[in-house]
Amino acid sequence: MQVHAYGAHAADKPLEHLHITRRATGAHDVQIDIAYCGICHSDLHQIRSEWAGTQYPCVPGHEIVGRVAAVGAHVSKFKVGDVVGVGCIVDSCQSCPDCDEGLENYCDNMVGTYNGKTDDAPGWTMGGYSQQIVVHERYVLNIRHPEADLAAVAPLLCAGITTYSPLRHWGAGPGKKVGVVGIGGLGHMGIKIAHAMGAHVVAFTTSDSKRADAKALGADEVVVSRNAEEMAAHAKSFDFILNTVAAPHDLDAFLALLKREGTMTLVGAPATPHPSPNVFNLILKRRSLAGSLIGGIPETQEMLDFCAEHGIVADIELIRADEINTAYERMLKGDVKYRFVIDNASLAA
Amino acid sequence: MQVHAYGAHAADKPLEHLHITRRATGAHDVQIDIAYCGICHSDLHQIRSEWAGTQYPCVPGHEIVGRVAAVGAHVSKFKVGDVVGVGCIVDSCQSCPDCDEGLENYCDNMVGTYNGKTDDAPGWTMGGYSQQIVVHERYVLNIRHPEADLAAVAPLLCAGITTYSPLRHWGAGPGKKVGVVGIGGLGHMGIKIAHAMGAHVVAFTTSDSKRADAKALGADEVVVSRNAEEMAAHAKSFDFILNTVAAPHDLDAFLALLKREGTMTLVGAPATPHPSPNVFNLILKRRSLAGSLIGGIPETQEMLDFCAEHGIVADIELIRADEINTAYERMLKGDVKYRFVIDNASLAA
Repeated sequence: MQVHAYGAHAADKPLEHLHITRRATGAHDVQIDIAYCGICHSDLHQIRSEWAGTQYPCVPGHEIVGRVAAVGAHVSKFKVGDVVGVGCIVDSCQSCPDCDEGLENYCDNMVGTYNGKTDDAPGWTMGGYSQQIVVHERYVLNIRHPEADLAAVAPLLCAGITTYSPLRHWGAGPGKKVGVVGIGGLGHMGIKIAHAMGAHVVAFTTSDSKRADAKALGADEVVVSRNAEEMAAHAKSFDFILNTVAAPHDLDAFLALLKREGTMTLVGAPATPHPSPNVFNLILKRRSLAGSLIGGIPETQEMLDFCAEHGIVADIELIRADEINTAYERMLKGDVKYRFVIDNASLAA
Repeated sequence: MQVHAYGAHAADKPLEHLHITRRATGAHDVQIDIAYCGICHSDLHQIRSEWAGTQYPCVPGHEIVGRVAAVGAHVSKFKVGDVVGVGCIVDSCQSCPDCDEGLENYCDNMVGTYNGKTDDAPGWTMGGYSQQIVVHERYVLNIRHPEADLAAVAPLLCAGITTYSPLRHWGAGPGKKVGVVGIGGLGHMGIKIAHAMGAHVVAFTTSDSKRADAKALGADEVVVSRNAEEMAAHAKSFDFILNTVAAPHDLDAFLALLKREGTMTLVGAPATPHPSPNVFNLILKRRSLAGSLIGGIPETQEMLDFCAEHGIVADIELIRADEINTAYERMLKGDVKYRFVIDNASLAA
């Protein structure tokens, strides 16, 4: 099956319209007509081969919302017409301890939604900047948000789960003081979700201009991290800090804000290393610096249901496919509040 | 009260015999005749002012074992003649949440056994390279080891608790695979204690020559960390790694050996930073890099009792006070198995 898509033929080429082939719908597969696909910063890293190993043509996109067009004979969880989502994972070994625990995101053989190794032609997966996708039912999620919200639900499939999972794992909730560093695609979801979990949320930004926005997203307090005095006022007070900033920066400034046994978790990976954190900052209060990678499939469903229940969606700017290259340039400048989402109907235009 | 001691008058001067003054024994104080004092690498850092802020004259030593010579009117836990120990802490605020939980080691106003701020003349604390010390009973420990072991018990007061506390906190025990990086003063205690806790212990060393020694200390396996093949065989398999190496080194090589949700805890602080750890190593398996600082007073007593019960002491080389400078030079070359201990009777010689 040939479908319209948008992708790039090389690291230094812009994205353009192209055709890709989807596999026939297997017994356990769900064929999905994609309605919307969010644009994640990872898409840009991958398509420009800033992380090693990009295969071309590369069709990014792992924040996918759509409707079930067909199901395989053994599919039990979905029927034609269901509104569904697909996130960062389309396959895994299904037999390791990680998979058994529903933490497919940590499976050594996890297959990403794009640029992942697959038996399907041409040998690597193609993502959500396309009309359709065919995915094993295990990796398909139910969407229970109202119809009108669907475009804004798409970013939950990566930005939502990437922030929800560490917030849940490290116990964000009532009585906990939680920091969110960076108010971008991930950070704005982190603020909304941590707030809905009942934590006292402090947003950190380098930009004074984002104060009001962060409050509107649900932050109880906003700290401009360049302001040493504001930072010092929060020393040793955080239970948990979710750090969404992928650019190299001074981790010590935030580690020093953690309580005894507090953890700062990184969900962004910079292309060049952060300055090495000061070991004394870890030792003196038994603090931890951790990392977290998206989330497992059951937890992704839990996050979607949590967000539906709390009326949480992303703040988005809906674009046509032919605006993707411009959107990438704007994203690089931080000129988006807070996520671009592609209207996939525009792919065939 | 004037007592014999050994210390330095400046960062670039050798240690020499000197006299220091101890305060009168207060109502809550225990006056201790020091029998033995271990030599910790921190002593050398401090006396050479490699960490900022050393006051001179500086008398190091925080691995103290001795006998109670006198007690204040309100002392209830100790009586004259008791065999006791003093570790790294001689005072703290006694009223913060950390102190309330018996984690005086994390109190913001914790006072170190030497070079700590005190009202006693001359304004900073003087450590265990001395004939006597006067300490508030809260910070004095009971020693239940046999008399013949006392010199080898001294290093438990710092090297023992510094390794015991993180091993306990991060759950070392039966069914857990625990790594100990570095086989020196701290590491050799870490191996003994982790083994006694029932963990499967893997010792990491840069030196092939330490294999047999590490096994003798209680390691189930020994890995030469320069050997990439040996390291790869342990990838993603550790629940916990205790890293005792204070010299800057590649943390990634060890982080990659942790299981999902595994933690590597640093107990040594290098004078110059480690190479910055790769964020992907944290993210891909939800791993943590943590730090730990000695231990609280109740946990130090628990550690001493645990070691007495399991017959654990340090492997030591007993020296006279006039051998301290030579011992420092040998310690810098790693030429000690595994801890120098001063026979404090030699101070008055």
